[in-house]
Amino acid sequence: MEPVRVGLLGLGTVGQGTATVLLRNAEEITRRAGRDIYVDFVATRDAAKAKALGLTAARLTDNAWDVVDDPAVDMVVELFGGDTLAKELLVKAIANGKHVVTANKALIALHGNEIFAAAEAKGVMVAFEAGVAGGIPVIKALREGLSANRIEWLAGIINGTGNFILTEMLQKSRDFADVLAEAQALGYAEADPTFDVEGIDAAHKLTILSSIAYGTPLQFKQTYTEGISRITAEDVAYAGELGYNIKHLGLARRTAKGIEQRVHPTLIPQRCLIANVHGVMNAVQVQGDAVGPTLYYGPGAGAEPTASAVIADIVDVVRAMTADPNNRVPHLAFQPSKLTNTQVLPIEEVETAFYLRMKVADRPGVLADITRILGERDISIEAFLQKEPAKDESDVDIIMLTQRVREGNMNEAIGQIEQLAAVAGEVTRIRVEALA
Amino acid sequence: MEPVRVGLLGLGTVGQGTATVLLRNAEEITRRAGRDIYVDFVATRDAAKAKALGLTAARLTDNAWDVVDDPAVDMVVELFGGDTLAKELLVKAIANGKHVVTANKALIALHGNEIFAAAEAKGVMVAFEAGVAGGIPVIKALREGLSANRIEWLAGIINGTGNFILTEMLQKSRDFADVLAEAQALGYAEADPTFDVEGIDAAHKLTILSSIAYGTPLQFKQTYTEGISRITAEDVAYAGELGYNIKHLGLARRTAKGIEQRVHPTLIPQRCLIANVHGVMNAVQVQGDAVGPTLYYGPGAGAEPTASAVIADIVDVVRAMTADPNNRVPHLAFQPSKLTNTQVLPIEEVETAFYLRMKVADRPGVLADITRILGERDISIEAFLQKEPAKDESDVDIIMLTQRVREGNMNEAIGQIEQLAAVAGEVTRIRVEALA
Repeated sequence: MEPVRVGLLGLGTVGQGTATVLLRNAEEITRRAGRDIYVDFVATRDAAKAKALGLTAARLTDNAWDVVDDPAVDMVVELFGGDTLAKELLVKAIANGKHVVTANKALIALHGNEIFAAAEAKGVMVAFEAGVAGGIPVIKALREGLSANRIEWLAGIINGTGNFILTEMLQKSRDFADVLAEAQALGYAEADPTFDVEGIDAAHKLTILSSIAYGTPLQFKQTYTEGISRITAEDVAYAGELGYNIKHLGLARRTAKGIEQRVHPTLIPQRCLIANVHGVMNAVQVQGDAVGPTLYYGPGAGAEPTASAVIADIVDVVRAMTADPNNRVPHLAFQPSKLTNTQVLPIEEVETAFYLRMKVADRPGVLADITRILGERDISIEAFLQKEPAKDESDVDIIMLTQRVREGNMNEAIGQIEQLAAVAGEVTRIRVEALA
Repeated sequence: MEPVRVGLLGLGTVGQGTATVLLRNAEEITRRAGRDIYVDFVATRDAAKAKALGLTAARLTDNAWDVVDDPAVDMVVELFGGDTLAKELLVKAIANGKHVVTANKALIALHGNEIFAAAEAKGVMVAFEAGVAGGIPVIKALREGLSANRIEWLAGIINGTGNFILTEMLQKSRDFADVLAEAQALGYAEADPTFDVEGIDAAHKLTILSSIAYGTPLQFKQTYTEGISRITAEDVAYAGELGYNIKHLGLARRTAKGIEQRVHPTLIPQRCLIANVHGVMNAVQVQGDAVGPTLYYGPGAGAEPTASAVIADIVDVVRAMTADPNNRVPHLAFQPSKLTNTQVLPIEEVETAFYLRMKVADRPGVLADITRILGERDISIEAFLQKEPAKDESDVDIIMLTQRVREGNMNEAIGQIEQLAAVAGEVTRIRVEALA
C-alpha cells in the first residue's frame, strides 16, 4: 500500500520524541500498520535539529502554513502547543481535508467543540490521545474499551508535576515551596508553575475525559479548579495518620442532579491502588456500570511517552482512513448528534466527605461548639485527632474527617466555626473520596 | 443506519451478562456506535432464562448451527467455552462470512492460528478481548494503544482465582489448601481447580498476550507453566520479610536469544504497583521502549466485566465492518504476512533471580558448602535470612535471594545442594522479578 506522509508542526520535546520513535521503530510500526508511515514535511526553525534527529529525507520549512497547505501531506501532526496559532493551523489543515493529530490539551479543552464540528463537516479525524495522561492510552480505553458501559465516575492523577510534589511531601515530609523549587531545578516544573500547581493543566485534561465519559460537549469553563499550593506538610502527615494519602485528582461523576467536574487536592484511602501512584506517574481510575473499577497507569509526560500516544493516533488514523466516516470512533466517544447538554453541577452542590484542620484554644467547651455547628447542618464526624501544642504555643490542632455532605452546607459551617473566639485563623478543608 | 443483528451462542454466566448489559445500556451503546445492536438469535436450551433476561424479541434455538447458518445474523458471539464444538461453530460462522466475537481463551490459544487464517481468507474479523483479563481492555492497549512501541516485556496477574488464594495467604497468613477450599465454597474456584491453580488458564492468556506483543504465531505448547499449589504460608511470610509479595505472574520478555514465555509464582518488590493488586483483580504491566511502563488493572472475570469486553468487541467490529480489511487492526497486532517465528526460549535458558528456602542442620560449615556450590556457578547472594528452629526441631530454615542467573545453572546448583548431608529434603525455589 501507499506510504502515509506526515506533516510535523514543531520539533520541541514531543516533536523530537515523535521523530525519534517513528525512525527508530519504523520497521515494527510498519509491521503493525501494514504500510510505511514517514515524516515528509517538517515546520521548524532549526534545520540542524532535524538533521541531527535523522530526518534526512524530510522537507523542511520555517513556515507552518506550507505544511498544512501541502497537497502531498496526508496528515498534520500539531506539536507546537499554545492555543492561538495552533488552532488556526488545525482549522486550515481540516479545511484542506487533512486528518489531524495533536497533543494539545488546552486547544482541545478550549476549542474542541468548534474543531470537531469542522472536522465532521469535512469527514476528517482529529486525534488527541497524547493530550491526556501522556503515554497512557486512556482515551482509547474510555472511548472504545469501555463502550459497553455507563461510566459512573472517573478519577485521575493527570498532572505529573503536581504528583511529584505531593509524593516528595509525603515520602520525605517536606514543605510545598521547598519541593516546588526542586521540581523547577529538575525541569519537572516551569519557572511559572501556575498551570501545573494551580490545576489548570489538569482541568484541561479532566474536561476532555468528562466529555468522553458522558457524551457532553467540552465544558472547560464549568470545571471547578483548585490547586495544591496550600497543602502543608502537616496536612500530609495528619492524613497519613488517618490512613489516607493526599493526591491532586481530577474527578468526573454522573449524578442524578448533573455532572460533577472538578480538580482539587483529595484524601484517598491508602489501600486504593491509585493512592500509591507516586512521582511523576499518572493514573486514571474509571468506574463503569458493567465492568466495575478499572485503572490505567503510566508516564503522563516526557518526549517518548507522549510520542507513543501521538504515533498510536497516527496509526489509528491510517487504519480508519478507508472506513465510512459515520462508522469511525466519534471524537467525543458519542455520535455528534447524540451529545447531551447535561449540566455541570456548581461546586456548592457537590457532595463529598471532608478533612478539616483548625487551631483551637485548649479549653473545655470548644469542641462542643464546633460539633454543634456541624451537627446543625447534619454533618457527622467519622474520625477525630487532637494534637498537643508545640512547645511555645497554647493552641492545639484539631483534625476531623466528616461524612459526606453538600459543599454549600460545609461552607456555612466553616464560616460559623471561624467566627468562634476559640478558633484561630482559617479552617483548612480538603475533600475526601473513598473511590469505591 | 441498519441495526446490527447479533447471534449469541450460550446463556451461561458471560452470555447472561452480555444479554443483560446490551439490553440495559442499549441507549448508551447506540449513542456511541451510531446504530442499534441487538440480540437477534440465541442458541440455548433454556428458553425460560432468555425470557427472564428480557430477550423477548430474540429468536431462540437449541441448535447452535441454526445461528451460525442464519443469513440474517451479522455477527456470531461465541460464549459456550470449550475448544471442540466452539471451534467447529466458529469455523463455520467464518466460512459463512460472519464476523465473530469470543471470550474463549483456550480456543484462541490452541487454535487461533488456524482460525485467524480462515478469517483472513474470508475478510472477516475475530475479536477476543474478553479472553484475556476479563473487563480490562488490555488487548486493545497492546494492539493499538502501544502500536508505536517495541514491547520489551509484559507481566500479568491474569488469573483471579490464583490471585485470590495468594492474597488470602498473604493478608491472613493462611495455608494454600485452606484458602483453596474457601475459594471453592465461594465459587471463585472450580471443583477441579487444576486449570486455575496449576496455571493452565494463565498460560492460555499469556500465550495470546505474547503473540500480540511480539508478532509471532500463537505458541501455547512452548509456554512454561508452573502453578501455585506448592507455595506455603512460610514462603509468603519470608518473602514479606525481604520486601516482596508472591504473585502468580504470566511473563513474556524479548531477549537477544529469543522470547521468554512463562507462567509461575514470582516474588515482586512490594513497592511495585502490581505487587499490590489483590483479591480476584487482574493487572497487566507492559514495558514499551518509547512509553516506558504502563499498567492496566481491573476485574479479570465475572458476568458483567467479561460482558463489557465482549460488547466492546461487538462495537469495534461494527465500526470496522465498512473498512478495507487490509486496514483493520490485525488479529495478532502485526500484519499476518509480517509475523516472525522467533523462538520461545526453553526455561533452562531463562535468566531470573531466585528465592531459595531450605532446611539445614544448624552446625558450622553448612553455609560454606552451600555458598561454595552457588559460587562455582557464578550465583551471587543478595539477601540472606536464617530462622531459628521450631521447638521440637533441630534444623533451621535458610532463605536466600540470589542475583540473576541462568535457570539451568541454578538447577545444577540445587541438585548439588540437595546432595549435602546437612540439607534435609528439597530446596524450594521461586523466581524473583524486579519488573524494572
